[in-house]
Amino acid sequence: MKNKALLIVWGLLGLVVATMLRADPDPTAMLPLAANGLAAAPPMGWNSWNKFACGVNEQVVRAAVDAMVDSGMQDVGYRYVVIDDCWQGMRAPDGAIEADPDRFPRGIKALADYVHSKGLLLGIYSDAGSQSCAGRAGSRGHEFQDAQRFAAWGIDYLKYDWCHTGSQDAPSSYRTMALALRATGRPILFSACEWGQARPWLWAADNGVNLWRVGPDIMDRWSGRGDYQLGVLDIVDLAEPRHAAAGPGHWNDPDMLEVGNGGMTEVEYRSHFSLWAEMAAPLIAGNDLAHMTPTTRVLLTNREVIAIDQDRLGAQGHRVARQGDGEVWSKPLADGGRAVLLFNRGDRATTITARWTDLGYPAHVTATLRDVWNGKDLPAVSGAFSADVEAHGVVMVTVTP
Amino acid sequence: MKNKALLIVWGLLGLVVATMLRADPDPTAMLPLAANGLAAAPPMGWNSWNKFACGVNEQVVRAAVDAMVDSGMQDVGYRYVVIDDCWQGMRAPDGAIEADPDRFPRGIKALADYVHSKGLLLGIYSDAGSQSCAGRAGSRGHEFQDAQRFAAWGIDYLKYDWCHTGSQDAPSSYRTMALALRATGRPILFSACEWGQARPWLWAADNGVNLWRVGPDIMDRWSGRGDYQLGVLDIVDLAEPRHAAAGPGHWNDPDMLEVGNGGMTEVEYRSHFSLWAEMAAPLIAGNDLAHMTPTTRVLLTNREVIAIDQDRLGAQGHRVARQGDGEVWSKPLADGGRAVLLFNRGDRATTITARWTDLGYPAHVTATLRDVWNGKDLPAVSGAFSADVEAHGVVMVTVTP
Repeated sequence: MKNKALLIVWGLLGLVVATMLRADPDPTAMLPLAANGLAAAPPMGWNSWNKFACGVNEQVVRAAVDAMVDSGMQDVGYRYVVIDDCWQGMRAPDGAIEADPDRFPRGIKALADYVHSKGLLLGIYSDAGSQSCAGRAGSRGHEFQDAQRFAAWGIDYLKYDWCHTGSQDAPSSYRTMALALRATGRPILFSACEWGQARPWLWAADNGVNLWRVGPDIMDRWSGRGDYQLGVLDIVDLAEPRHAAAGPGHWNDPDMLEVGNGGMTEVEYRSHFSLWAEMAAPLIAGNDLAHMTPTTRVLLTNREVIAIDQDRLGAQGHRVARQGDGEVWSKPLADGGRAVLLFNRGDRATTITARWTDLGYPAHVTATLRDVWNGKDLPAVSGAFSADVEAHGVVMVTVTP
Repeated sequence: MKNKALLIVWGLLGLVVATMLRADPDPTAMLPLAANGLAAAPPMGWNSWNKFACGVNEQVVRAAVDAMVDSGMQDVGYRYVVIDDCWQGMRAPDGAIEADPDRFPRGIKALADYVHSKGLLLGIYSDAGSQSCAGRAGSRGHEFQDAQRFAAWGIDYLKYDWCHTGSQDAPSSYRTMALALRATGRPILFSACEWGQARPWLWAADNGVNLWRVGPDIMDRWSGRGDYQLGVLDIVDLAEPRHAAAGPGHWNDPDMLEVGNGGMTEVEYRSHFSLWAEMAAPLIAGNDLAHMTPTTRVLLTNREVIAIDQDRLGAQGHRVARQGDGEVWSKPLADGGRAVLLFNRGDRATTITARWTDLGYPAHVTATLRDVWNGKDLPAVSGAFSADVEAHGVVMVTVTP
């Protein structure tokens, strides 16, 4: 008995010594990075890709800047004007990245000065791999150099793509650029475009990323799959299950908006925008701001819908009930209320009912209701709220006990 | 029947179209890199770490350079003088790496000029992670910038370590630096110090690496395990199974030599050196060249042993028979012969027999024999060759049919 106890003591001692000797060559490298303090609410802005793709240039960006101001988008919170892929020229012999001189003859710094003179912020694009998706220069191996340059130009936002990354590890690749951005001393919002392959909702926030994509690129369609692209319904179904990962400073990104690009009906665009607001998604318009219809402008600038997206609690709304093709979504708000989306995925009108118990309230509670899209108070009710919802449409209300 | 066949045809067609649509965002990124043309034979030289560790400085390196010339090491093939960790100072505001001004007051360029003036080549050290193993600046995110600087200084060899790499992917991390080195236009031999964790023998050669470590650091001991260190016997047993991966331009690296550092007997050092030569390992001395004993000098400069290491066939010798504590190793040579090592791992003298059939020869063949360490021809024999081998010792012969 005594010998047995001694054996156990020696065994434990051996374990402790073995643990001490096993020096980890890098015990701190993957500790969470402290948040950069940006994106307290989901970022709002515009990006060149969805409309202009590789046709971006100085005129296109300046036109978007002017339109963002003139359309009233700036007044309702849009701030970032983001140049996507294809702005890059060659690297200088010392490795410094240059803008494509044909597309940006006056350079990025001059453009940033213009953007800042309007009270807006400038975003740019690069890629964690050896090349961008369009085959331009990637930042791999140049991260600190590129970050220095972006900061010197006055860049406020970086969208960082994942093409040509071979076998790179996503967390450390994004962390490297996050550290490079921080080393500049300039606050630069960091957007990861990794398409959700490595489950960024699990690691991106801890590696200095403010928003990360949950899936492939969006396409300007209600549903369906294209070549590395998904319609609105399909992207929503990728974003919804990740809702717990979102919060101030770190957001799921279902990709940029297609509102106004022509591939969906007005009803579908309103649903698309509503779902993005309900999910506390970044609201990055992707249409031609300089030539949008009044309908598109009204849709993109609805203050009450935007307020739901930007609510300071920062909760991502999610599905709390299904009723055939109808769905009830609930987004907790900072005032204790809920932004409730009655969402009809189907091709026929249907009645959808939000029950208080599905929203986390006792059934007997009376709550005030407000129709968000129409900016109208509705009669107070208790227990539940029902509405007829058109095909592919939504009814969006706030429910406040 | 007809309908069934039609169904199959449509199914196959669908598969083909689906395959075509599934564009791979990076079909070429991990294709093998073309070899850089360096290290046709295993590199030979000296490295500061095993003796001086973090105590390296300009005087230490210059003394090694002078001793490499004066000792006759240069005459027998030693070329690279490699500065290991702790040479780095701070990075400049633009990210450029600087040498520690206290240790290298005249800078690395002046040292390279000195090394080159002696007909030797200069190596340096960095790390794929955010910091080096000794906590100095790592190259992560600075790869192209650092490579440019190394090339501008006149660096000929880079040892690239793996500390503070977090969750980085090893193949793409080494590939990034290999691409950065190539982008300089200067031939720079690339040595990966990844400790064998990600099985570099499977991918390093295809990612621009000339030699890669098979395991932890060597320690100046015949056998046993330290804190991330292994004795000679233990490292040999990690290197031996990888023999098929070695060849001109790409070598397994069982780590640098400990010959002359005092922790082993002369017999053991001779075995250590013989095993490294037999394995076509890099011969990177790790002792204080300026103060080595004649015994150490003689051991490190044996032309016939070195010729086996450097044999142009580039095959790595490996174990072909075990006889108790005795082992027979065979290394195919360019002239059709074999470098045969009779190796006694044990603590007592033993007789070891190399059978022709174990070397890949028919038993009836008569072969000429030469005792490599003693530079003496032995009587020709057929079938087998036996010798008494002292404890921890070797007998090394060439067998030429």
